[in-house]
Amino acid sequence: MNYKKLGNILGKIMILEGALMLAPLIVSIVYREGWQNVFAFAIPIAALALGGLLLQIPKAKRDHLYQKEGFALTALSWIVMALFGAIPFVINGDIPHYVDACFEIMSGFTTTGASIVTDITALSRSTLFWRSFSHWIGGMGILVFVLIFIPESNDGSSMHLLRAESPGPQVGKIVSKMKVTTRILYLIYLGLTVLEVIILMLDKPIPGYENDQFFFSLLATFGCAGTGGFGFIPGSIELFNPFSQYVMAIFLLLFGCNFALYYLILIGRARDILRSEEFKTYIGIAVVAVGLVFLSLAGKFEAFPQTYTTEEAFRHSLFQVASIMTTTGYTTADYSAWPITAVSVLVLLMFVGGMAGSTAGGMKVSRIVMAAKGTYINLRKLINPRYVPKAKLEGKTLEQKTINDVFAFLTLYFFIVLASVLVLSFDPVNGQAVTVVSDAGTYEVTHGFFSNFSASLACISNVGPAFEAVGPYLSYSGYSILSKLVLTFVMLLGRLEILPVFILFHRRTWKKI
Amino acid sequence: MNYKKLGNILGKIMILEGALMLAPLIVSIVYREGWQNVFAFAIPIAALALGGLLLQIPKAKRDHLYQKEGFALTALSWIVMALFGAIPFVINGDIPHYVDACFEIMSGFTTTGASIVTDITALSRSTLFWRSFSHWIGGMGILVFVLIFIPESNDGSSMHLLRAESPGPQVGKIVSKMKVTTRILYLIYLGLTVLEVIILMLDKPIPGYENDQFFFSLLATFGCAGTGGFGFIPGSIELFNPFSQYVMAIFLLLFGCNFALYYLILIGRARDILRSEEFKTYIGIAVVAVGLVFLSLAGKFEAFPQTYTTEEAFRHSLFQVASIMTTTGYTTADYSAWPITAVSVLVLLMFVGGMAGSTAGGMKVSRIVMAAKGTYINLRKLINPRYVPKAKLEGKTLEQKTINDVFAFLTLYFFIVLASVLVLSFDPVNGQAVTVVSDAGTYEVTHGFFSNFSASLACISNVGPAFEAVGPYLSYSGYSILSKLVLTFVMLLGRLEILPVFILFHRRTWKKI
Repeated sequence: MNYKKLGNILGKIMILEGALMLAPLIVSIVYREGWQNVFAFAIPIAALALGGLLLQIPKAKRDHLYQKEGFALTALSWIVMALFGAIPFVINGDIPHYVDACFEIMSGFTTTGASIVTDITALSRSTLFWRSFSHWIGGMGILVFVLIFIPESNDGSSMHLLRAESPGPQVGKIVSKMKVTTRILYLIYLGLTVLEVIILMLDKPIPGYENDQFFFSLLATFGCAGTGGFGFIPGSIELFNPFSQYVMAIFLLLFGCNFALYYLILIGRARDILRSEEFKTYIGIAVVAVGLVFLSLAGKFEAFPQTYTTEEAFRHSLFQVASIMTTTGYTTADYSAWPITAVSVLVLLMFVGGMAGSTAGGMKVSRIVMAAKGTYINLRKLINPRYVPKAKLEGKTLEQKTINDVFAFLTLYFFIVLASVLVLSFDPVNGQAVTVVSDAGTYEVTHGFFSNFSASLACISNVGPAFEAVGPYLSYSGYSILSKLVLTFVMLLGRLEILPVFILFHRRTWKKI
Repeated sequence: MNYKKLGNILGKIMILEGALMLAPLIVSIVYREGWQNVFAFAIPIAALALGGLLLQIPKAKRDHLYQKEGFALTALSWIVMALFGAIPFVINGDIPHYVDACFEIMSGFTTTGASIVTDITALSRSTLFWRSFSHWIGGMGILVFVLIFIPESNDGSSMHLLRAESPGPQVGKIVSKMKVTTRILYLIYLGLTVLEVIILMLDKPIPGYENDQFFFSLLATFGCAGTGGFGFIPGSIELFNPFSQYVMAIFLLLFGCNFALYYLILIGRARDILRSEEFKTYIGIAVVAVGLVFLSLAGKFEAFPQTYTTEEAFRHSLFQVASIMTTTGYTTADYSAWPITAVSVLVLLMFVGGMAGSTAGGMKVSRIVMAAKGTYINLRKLINPRYVPKAKLEGKTLEQKTINDVFAFLTLYFFIVLASVLVLSFDPVNGQAVTVVSDAGTYEVTHGFFSNFSASLACISNVGPAFEAVGPYLSYSGYSILSKLVLTFVMLLGRLEILPVFILFHRRTWKKI
């Protein structure tokens, strides 16, 4: 294990996190939140800077990083980032318990958006900003960002980091140089972010929040861009005007796309986007899902009282499908009180997630496509043992090894959900009733199997809000410390796609080479 | 496609089914149930005999069956068996609707035990017998039985049938000759069945059913042996004395074991059983599950009113774990009203199922073991790309191909559950309230996501009763025709382990060779 090199990179990441925390520090000063809030960020910034600089001192003899080192470093960095990122909440008193604060910021960095906050109006501006900003940071991945500043070596070290942190089964460089690829991706990310903020600013301000339009547009956009979904006013996105809700739904779907597609637009090959199988499947699933949710809200499957106008039903269907499929978790309505068809569609979307190479979580559409092709190949082989598969994906040969890895990943994904359900079942919160107050009225739900199942799923897929007792108008605050720690771990597993995290905790990773 | 050979074997299976239906016909005569009940069996017997004999006439030129033919034949035979096996229920009026009758008998043959019958006391003796007997027939598989009568060819034709019908990822012959293997397995099955009936007869009769002890012992044993679980008196096994419940729990666990283990006992190598990794895992899971359910009933996790004595809590824990893990579905208590830990453990057991080569359904313990080993190998390969896996299972080398197939199977298994959940969500029954009257009292449940999820799982794993609105004290009768057809199909997918059924419906299977 190349401890020195690992330390060097980890140090750089810490310094970068410290630099990024200057943003909420400034927010705190601008809104005159008092010294406690300023120190809440200043102290961890100082700690990160000092720690980061100290880690630069040892000079690594070997510049190269092995794959296992790259993976372990990625997982370690994310944990370190969460451990430091949680400190402000504890110091400024917004989230007094450190485990809660770690849950919250890990939920932020992993772009989950699951929250233990019960009263969002009690949080300071700087806390709200740091929470949403963490989505934006975590969406593209911080290690990828660090790569921009690391001298490019051709030995693949940086590729290992990118592979560990980027969502999806395969990581392709869009241009031959890693660093250039990374820069292009970040520019696209930044460009789309700025564009969304501008368009949201065109809308009328939310009544009662007239002076906060820029602040809220920024926070809403952070949540969309990172597909995170932390709320910052009561009722998530419910209070926003329909125009803003439509805009966000569209941007959510855009941020759920593989960013390489935007590069195609930049180089004038926009037509090739329509050839992408993953893109077509992604859009196809979204369209079918919106249709089914809309029909469900219209009472076509089970009886459902008509409280929405047709426009509202369509808007909520579109928004929730976009929000859940991209694993964001913003809400415009209490979807957990919707008919079972709508609920089932949303649960399935939580599994699927967005496209590979986007900021979205979940299994990824490309893996679903590969699993389908793999199953077809297995069937054909049983029919004719001499069958030679010629499967392709996006015009390239789909290797059997890739398919096997996808099946292994998906199996593990399901089993982690089930394992998490088992651990959550030990929580004394089970069986307890919670009162929900939402646009669907006031009603009671019991914390049961579906609560734990959907919570586990919402955490591994980085969605955030789940169903029943952890529905969109409730929080994760009822869970015990153990459950929160498990769910924090599950979020990280989901964001880094499982194996890199396991590698960090495997004995053999730390053996001398 | 070798239609003639296929017809010949299908004909033999039909004749065999007709012969097996003589048993309920005799029950009908013995209990003097009147002509309608006798004809209910006599008519399909005549049809099966006639059809079966006609199918013997064409002489096949090619004796050999290709793999795809073997698989398609297996799936086809099971469907034909269900189509004919459902007829008696319609004629004697016990289940007037043919789709319901098909659901019921498919549930019988696949040893699921899911029922659409709402009042079990209204059924005739011959119907009760045929339902339970179908478990016993389906448990070991009828094609395997036919193999005994087919002249053994060394070209592997019979192996294809066995592979398609036997539960588990790998089919091993325990002795070199297929036919001898099959005979040994059937003798073990028969022996254990007779043994259980005898032991159950030693118990005091159930109060109020003094004259029915032999009949009920037989039916209870059919359900245990095939791990089916159709009830035949109100409350499933609840009314049986504790002694019988303990006996059944133990026999359930015995029938959930790979039958090859009993062969080891027969040839005096009983000690080798303890070397079986799958057996150790199976017992380990069962012990942990009983412990967790017991602690859960004692209120160790969530608050739970103490209505059971310690002995009762232990007995119910043992019985339900044995019943659900072996995917039988017999119940001694209303487990769906238990605390969430108990519920979650049982849901997980529904996924796991019994051992490969048993009559149990589910994913099978051996697949879980292989998936765990496969995941470990993948992890080790990421840590060290030059790592050469030396995985073994039961002392034999575990091929990478086998592991890949297991991952592919498990992924498909999960996705079929989710697909079924989606289709069931269209059912107008969703959102409706049902009243449960059980040992846990009278309470109301709403047909929701968990009902459909557990129903889909209980059908693919061939368990039968599920949770919530399809819990053990309720039935599947509320579902629409579409939902029932889907669940019938899902049961068959579970019993034949998915791909053989897909092969039957694949266009290329029917192309000329």
